[in-house]
Amino acid sequence: MTNPLLPLNNASMANAGLLDQLKFDSKGLVPLIVQDAVNGQVLMMAYMNREALEKTLDSGKVHTYSRSRGRLALKGESSGHFQHVKEILTDCDGDVVLIKVEQVVAACHEGYRSCFFRQYDERGGQWKTIAERQFDPDKVYSK
Amino acid sequence: MTNPLLPLNNASMANAGLLDQLKFDSKGLVPLIVQDAVNGQVLMMAYMNREALEKTLDSGKVHTYSRSRGRLALKGESSGHFQHVKEILTDCDGDVVLIKVEQVVAACHEGYRSCFFRQYDERGGQWKTIAERQFDPDKVYSK
Repeated sequence: MTNPLLPLNNASMANAGLLDQLKFDSKGLVPLIVQDAVNGQVLMMAYMNREALEKTLDSGKVHTYSRSRGRLALKGESSGHFQHVKEILTDCDGDVVLIKVEQVVAACHEGYRSCFFRQYDERGGQWKTIAERQFDPDKVYSK
Repeated sequence: MTNPLLPLNNASMANAGLLDQLKFDSKGLVPLIVQDAVNGQVLMMAYMNREALEKTLDSGKVHTYSRSRGRLALKGESSGHFQHVKEILTDCDGDVVLIKVEQVVAACHEGYRSCFFRQYDERGGQWKTIAERQFDPDKVYSK
C-alpha cells in the first residue's frame, strides 16, 4: 500500500480541501485521539486546531493545541518523545481526529507509555495503576 | 484475573469515590473513547456525564450523554448494537475515560464497525473510506 501521507515535508501538500471538511468546534478545535500504530494501544487524548493539523501534516510529527497554555505544542518538544504519524483518520461526523503513530519512548508526561494507565476497580479507593513507568519524569523534564 | 467491574448489576456497587476523582468539565462532561476489547480498534468518541458513567457501571453497557439531544443515551438503544463493558480506564489528568468493550455488530450509525472509517489521503478531494459497511443503516434504523 502506498503511503497516503507522503510527501509530508512540503507545506503546500497539505490538502486544504480535506481540512475544510472537518468540523472544528466554536473554539476552532477538534478532539484528537492518538493510538499506537504497532499494538493499537490508545496513548492519549488532546486537541488540535487547524494550524496544529497543518503542522502535523507538514512535519510528520503530532502537534496539538494546548488549551492550558493557549498555544500550539509539538508533542515531545521537551522530552524528545515524538509521535511520528503513520495514519490519520476522522469519524463519521468529521469532528474527531484519530492519528496512529510510532511513539518514541512513551506518550505520558508521568512516564507511562500511555496516559491511560489507571483502571476503574470498585474495590479500591483509588483508580488502580496497571502499567509500569518507562522513564522518570523528574529526570526527563529537569533537563 | 478477577473482573474489577463485578458485580455490575448493583447500583450501590458503583464506587462514588472513584467517580469523584474524575474531572468533569464546566458542563459536567468527560470525553469518552470506546475501544474494541478484542482487536484494539478505536470504535467511537462520545461524552459522558456522571449519570452516564453510573448507568454504564450499573448495567455493564455503555451509556453516553448526547450533547445534541441533551439527554442520557444507551448506546445501541435503537439498533441493538450494544457495547458490553470489559474495562474502564482514565488518563493521567482524570479528565478522559477510555472504555474497552465487546461490540455487538458495529458501533457507527452509518453501518461501519468503527466511526473512524475515513482516512486522510492528500491526493483525493474527499477523506477516503477504508472500511466495509457491516449493516444497512436504512434497514436498521427504520424498524
